[in-house]
Amino acid sequence: MSGMCPIPDASGGRVMLAHGEGGRLSRQLLRRRILPHFANRHLESLGDATVLPRLDGAPVFTTDGFVVSPLFFPGGDIGCLSVFGTTNDLAVAGARPRWLSLGLILEEGLPDELLEAVLASIARATREVGVEVVTGDTKVVPRGAVDRLFITTAGLGEQLGWSLGGPRTMAAGDALIVSGPVGRHGFAVLAARENLGIDPLPTSDCGSLWPAVEALAAAGASVRCLRDATRGGVAAVLQEWAEASGLTMALDGSAIPVTAEVRGLSELLGIDPLHVANEGTMVAAVPATSIEAVLAVLRNVPITRGAVIAGRVEPRGFTPVTVRGALGRPRPLDEPLGAPLPRIC
Amino acid sequence: MSGMCPIPDASGGRVMLAHGEGGRLSRQLLRRRILPHFANRHLESLGDATVLPRLDGAPVFTTDGFVVSPLFFPGGDIGCLSVFGTTNDLAVAGARPRWLSLGLILEEGLPDELLEAVLASIARATREVGVEVVTGDTKVVPRGAVDRLFITTAGLGEQLGWSLGGPRTMAAGDALIVSGPVGRHGFAVLAARENLGIDPLPTSDCGSLWPAVEALAAAGASVRCLRDATRGGVAAVLQEWAEASGLTMALDGSAIPVTAEVRGLSELLGIDPLHVANEGTMVAAVPATSIEAVLAVLRNVPITRGAVIAGRVEPRGFTPVTVRGALGRPRPLDEPLGAPLPRIC
Repeated sequence: MSGMCPIPDASGGRVMLAHGEGGRLSRQLLRRRILPHFANRHLESLGDATVLPRLDGAPVFTTDGFVVSPLFFPGGDIGCLSVFGTTNDLAVAGARPRWLSLGLILEEGLPDELLEAVLASIARATREVGVEVVTGDTKVVPRGAVDRLFITTAGLGEQLGWSLGGPRTMAAGDALIVSGPVGRHGFAVLAARENLGIDPLPTSDCGSLWPAVEALAAAGASVRCLRDATRGGVAAVLQEWAEASGLTMALDGSAIPVTAEVRGLSELLGIDPLHVANEGTMVAAVPATSIEAVLAVLRNVPITRGAVIAGRVEPRGFTPVTVRGALGRPRPLDEPLGAPLPRIC
Repeated sequence: MSGMCPIPDASGGRVMLAHGEGGRLSRQLLRRRILPHFANRHLESLGDATVLPRLDGAPVFTTDGFVVSPLFFPGGDIGCLSVFGTTNDLAVAGARPRWLSLGLILEEGLPDELLEAVLASIARATREVGVEVVTGDTKVVPRGAVDRLFITTAGLGEQLGWSLGGPRTMAAGDALIVSGPVGRHGFAVLAARENLGIDPLPTSDCGSLWPAVEALAAAGASVRCLRDATRGGVAAVLQEWAEASGLTMALDGSAIPVTAEVRGLSELLGIDPLHVANEGTMVAAVPATSIEAVLAVLRNVPITRGAVIAGRVEPRGFTPVTVRGALGRPRPLDEPLGAPLPRIC
């Protein structure tokens, strides 16, 4: 997990429109400010496309846009988030993250220090995951045409020999394992944006799930499917799995891990942490025979050390996703129309 | 080349914040509005990452952000531009374009019809190039946080057996071939944005260069390097090649193809078309022995039928890039600090 980045001040220069227009200033921005963070042999040619080494496994491809506001929040920032978010998507698909593309859209007037801090955070996160930024693009748009800085990353990974069956292979009796406390990222961003003045502030779980997936694959652990519980939270993952499998996902409310800060905000705002985004927490559907093995592996990796059984897969009942409350009665877990928290990633 | 898209009206619905937040409306937007344009077996799983077939050649990876304003202009729109721009980068790197990722950032309130027209244009362009959109992401940000619609595409291609030596293999005596009239895209966008009231309006050259590259590769034509002349125009490509090769790129001003509309705007605005972006025009450096073969191949493909020899590579003189004028004297072609035309791609 990445530590909190200090918010940089704006005492230095600023990004100008001309930095994005393909002339000498564009090349200066690229060579002096961006490339030094990402030195690798693939970037040296500076072509518009990068030829990469051949892959042994099948290529796995994903993309994500990042528009989080504020850009810096307790536990992370838009930079490391863009790396972890995209590489986590590869990891939970059973792929080793290898390479990233980095698309930056910058607002004219963006302080150089802010760009610098975001780039440094991206670079730290890529080193942590073991991926390289091998191609990129930077656009600068006039003041007001974008809110400071958006990032779109695409990730290219290599499928592992270890295979995930996918949600259609799920069966009644499978365990639903949640890899750590839920709702931390969404509430951390919300608290930072709204200056909620809560003490202690919730901290994002923003981090790389790849070490956990790599350990599961190395152990040959049997897993039906994995999914990082980002936008829409754990609830959205379970809705999709219920739909794909035709089964009911039955959570045990008392087993769902929640930090004290998240519980407090959840009660204050009336938002269920199961609907709130995570950025370093995944859900696993695991056949009964390998539950202990999977938990042992996950608890041995820092980012998933809080893994617990949060529910079971059951034959399809009246509702696709249920949560059993304190009195033992299952209630339906609704899928909200939209999420309660905009711009959290 | 794509025809001009009519600008859609806004009589229908609009994109809402909740469409981007991972709940039921997000899935509706994806399934009802976006996926129908891009039906392919890779998208069916709807996972966060897509497992693709193994590649025979080395993977080639690129990305581009598109922030063009206006979204629709004579000859194209942001949708087809995002496909042609990214796949052209793969093509000129000597790779067959295979797959695209599609990252959309939408402003709350964007008319559904506008989104629909852009998606349809993307889909048409992918069919024309022969690539598939296999993964994507959609974010919706509040009104004012983005100017309508930005697109970031990443492209994954497969290296052809045919190889390009790169700018370091260029030699004095090589021909510099330009594949068609220059400056059309940048002037088309400018004229549309500023309502310049010029008749006829310049039309963008927005289109796919892949058929031309495929034909060169099939013919086994010897080419040192190719580059699509986007931001910064032909001048920016030649500046980079001069720097990489240590040679002088000597253009013959009278040989550079320019349409009447571009010439008129160029004189009116005092902007050299060599500095203006193209989106379907490339520069090739070609050894003397294969000039006729390369020209014959290019002139047989519609998008490059206007290919001409626009200059030669010379031993390094005082300036990296020169243009010989009507009186036979070479003048230096400056690299501007920024480009004269913002938000043209």
